[in-house]
Amino acid sequence: PPSPLQPPGLPLAPCRSFSNNKIQVELDESSGVAMMKLKSPPVNSLSLELLTEFVIGLEKLENDRACRGVIITSAVPKVFSSGLDITEMCGKSTEHYAEFWRAVQELWLRLYSSSLVTVAAVNGSSPAGGCLVALSCDYRIMAENPKFSIGLNETQLGIVAPFWFKDTFVNTVGHRIAERSLQLGSLYPAPEAHKLGLVDELVPEEKLLEKAAAVMAQWLALPDHARQLTKTMMRKALVDRMVAHREEDIKNFVTFVSKESIQKSLRMYMEMLKKRK
Amino acid sequence: PPSPLQPPGLPLAPCRSFSNNKIQVELDESSGVAMMKLKSPPVNSLSLELLTEFVIGLEKLENDRACRGVIITSAVPKVFSSGLDITEMCGKSTEHYAEFWRAVQELWLRLYSSSLVTVAAVNGSSPAGGCLVALSCDYRIMAENPKFSIGLNETQLGIVAPFWFKDTFVNTVGHRIAERSLQLGSLYPAPEAHKLGLVDELVPEEKLLEKAAAVMAQWLALPDHARQLTKTMMRKALVDRMVAHREEDIKNFVTFVSKESIQKSLRMYMEMLKKRK
Amino acid sequence: PPSPLQPPGLPLAPCRSFSNNKIQVELDESSGVAMMKLKSPPVNSLSLELLTEFVIGLEKLENDRACRGVIITSAVPKVFSSGLDITEMCGKSTEHYAEFWRAVQELWLRLYSSSLVTVAAVNGSSPAGGCLVALSCDYRIMAENPKFSIGLNETQLGIVAPFWFKDTFVNTVGHRIAERSLQLGSLYPAPEAHKLGLVDELVPEEKLLEKAAAVMAQWLALPDHARQLTKTMMRKALVDRMVAHREEDIKNFVTFVSKESIQKSLRMYMEMLKKRK
Repeated sequence: PPSPLQPPGLPLAPCRSFSNNKIQVELDESSGVAMMKLKSPPVNSLSLELLTEFVIGLEKLENDRACRGVIITSAVPKVFSSGLDITEMCGKSTEHYAEFWRAVQELWLRLYSSSLVTVAAVNGSSPAGGCLVALSCDYRIMAENPKFSIGLNETQLGIVAPFWFKDTFVNTVGHRIAERSLQLGSLYPAPEAHKLGLVDELVPEEKLLEKAAAVMAQWLALPDHARQLTKTMMRKALVDRMVAHREEDIKNFVTFVSKESIQKSLRMYMEMLKKRK
Repeated sequence: PPSPLQPPGLPLAPCRSFSNNKIQVELDESSGVAMMKLKSPPVNSLSLELLTEFVIGLEKLENDRACRGVIITSAVPKVFSSGLDITEMCGKSTEHYAEFWRAVQELWLRLYSSSLVTVAAVNGSSPAGGCLVALSCDYRIMAENPKFSIGLNETQLGIVAPFWFKDTFVNTVGHRIAERSLQLGSLYPAPEAHKLGLVDELVPEEKLLEKAAAVMAQWLALPDHARQLTKTMMRKALVDRMVAHREEDIKNFVTFVSKESIQKSLRMYMEMLKKRK
Repeated sequence: PPSPLQPPGLPLAPCRSFSNNKIQVELDESSGVAMMKLKSPPVNSLSLELLTEFVIGLEKLENDRACRGVIITSAVPKVFSSGLDITEMCGKSTEHYAEFWRAVQELWLRLYSSSLVTVAAVNGSSPAGGCLVALSCDYRIMAENPKFSIGLNETQLGIVAPFWFKDTFVNTVGHRIAERSLQLGSLYPAPEAHKLGLVDELVPEEKLLEKAAAVMAQWLALPDHARQLTKTMMRKALVDRMVAHREEDIKNFVTFVSKESIQKSLRMYMEMLKKRK
């Protein structure tokens, strides 16, 4: 239905609320804040489909002049996002691996350099790529449940986070904590993640969205233009480095993931996940 | 009057105590420590005149072999320095903007790379350029009054701190705290500033100068030569980066500040300041 | 004697336990963990001989497929390592200085980029070069005795840590703490070193090796290949920078240490150390 503020006779703005298979977005026109929910049960794996919808959703919001900020959260209980979908990296063609990796890069590029204020409301566990999504936002609030953990745990799967995951991590927690955490593939329970600076704030789970809205309001109190230029100043060096090495990074990923030893590791990991259920 | 240690018949050393309109300097020859006080009421705005006198004062001290360290503080109650003088950035010619910005750069270059030990005794609030002055010293002691705040709050005025403000900030508090604080234009009350590492130490206001002298003595216990080379090693990369981009940085500033939208923001800010009085 | 697990008639594996003048190494084949003890009384000065044996020892372990990690500790009471042997830097030929410095570089290169998991069990004081050895490991555990201190105190001797000491330090504790500590030549008692992140963990001295073994087991739980690639990703930039400037760094050292003023400082320091005994 048209908003009461909508002048009669004018067409509705193109983007106010939309929903795809894996992403659900609602924009509150009065505040300029969108809520983007990942809804790809059981664990919000970052499949090619989810990544693509995520990027399209962000693009729409960026192009919508009514939107100034987006809160990213999960519609699935207990999990924010489990990270990259391993089925996309296993037993597929090299073309598929390349397409998948380009989509991962695209999401990070779009999110890390978004002109919108981006707040992650981390309402569940968030390993690997899920952690990257949170780290790419401007601010991270996490449910204070110690059963929820977050971190870049790639080494535990026998794989290696790419340099831009690493640099995003270093920019958040510093070189030393990153060095140790990445080598150990550490997943930190929410309280420890907060202590290390991996998330900015903990709140009881039922207050998470309320708190996210309050934080968003604080960020939106700043003039967009000055805030955006400042964000660019902080993040441009890393974005440029990634763009400069983008094709090389795709090649590295494809070569690495195509190795029989890595395929075997990933298959074993998937078997383990299946058994765990 | 000549110091009692001054051999009779010899001319006085050129710099022992001097005072300009906006800066007052006294050098204690026995300790080698100078006290430099900013005295430009009501709020020690960094006007072109103050900046120029500040740089000349530092230069004199650096060339005085009796001087090994300088304590920088304010002669004005409740304010260390309110930062760049907005009247210099408003309704003036582009030539004036360029001259002003060059003077801001010069102060930072001189202070950040000074061969003297530099201790900031922050005895009042210190926003924006005032914060930069403190950050450019070797050590910051702040009066523990929570009414005094410090930070780079440029975005709150609709403007953007230049890259070398940002890098000086990052070198002090790390990338993550800088990213958040610069976007939000955060001004931190003294206790929080201390917790974040923006200042090194808090003391009761009445003990500030005493403490600054004690810290200075600790730094002067080191051999000057080794300490200076170490300081250069830590700061040279940023100094070189700034020098390499100096003219470009001036152009950016002049273009930015000449925009009508920015002029309007600054005029509104000045109106607000006037009404507040 | 051959291990009871050694099949009769086969030659002994080349490296299981070996001992040189200054270094003692034992490899536990079941765990893959070597213990390397510095035993150069009275204070484990890093002499040319010790440095050379250290590098050879590491090389042997890296080439031994049974070895996955090494714990580095001291066989001398109260001291982990007192740092570079000043007698190697005093009253010798420029050729000797160059040879000595190349050996210091070589140790750091080998240790900082080792493919093994490296844990420092810091069971005593560890100034200057001793601190560098600890910082170059993957993890540092220190005896919680406040009489033991650690830090890069070069400026206290009138000398300057080279850039790669500095960068190793910055990578561990961040820019600000490094800037202050290096200028002041700060030696931190164990509790303060822990608070600053200079060491990762404190334990009672009698539990040090037990704890080191537990930490090592935790690191060895990760697949070697992914962990090694991740370590390289974190450390390669600094290693490359050092290699690129290696010859220049040697020249700088030789020129610096050959100065009469520096020679005098070092002689005075050695006199002071002799008197203290």
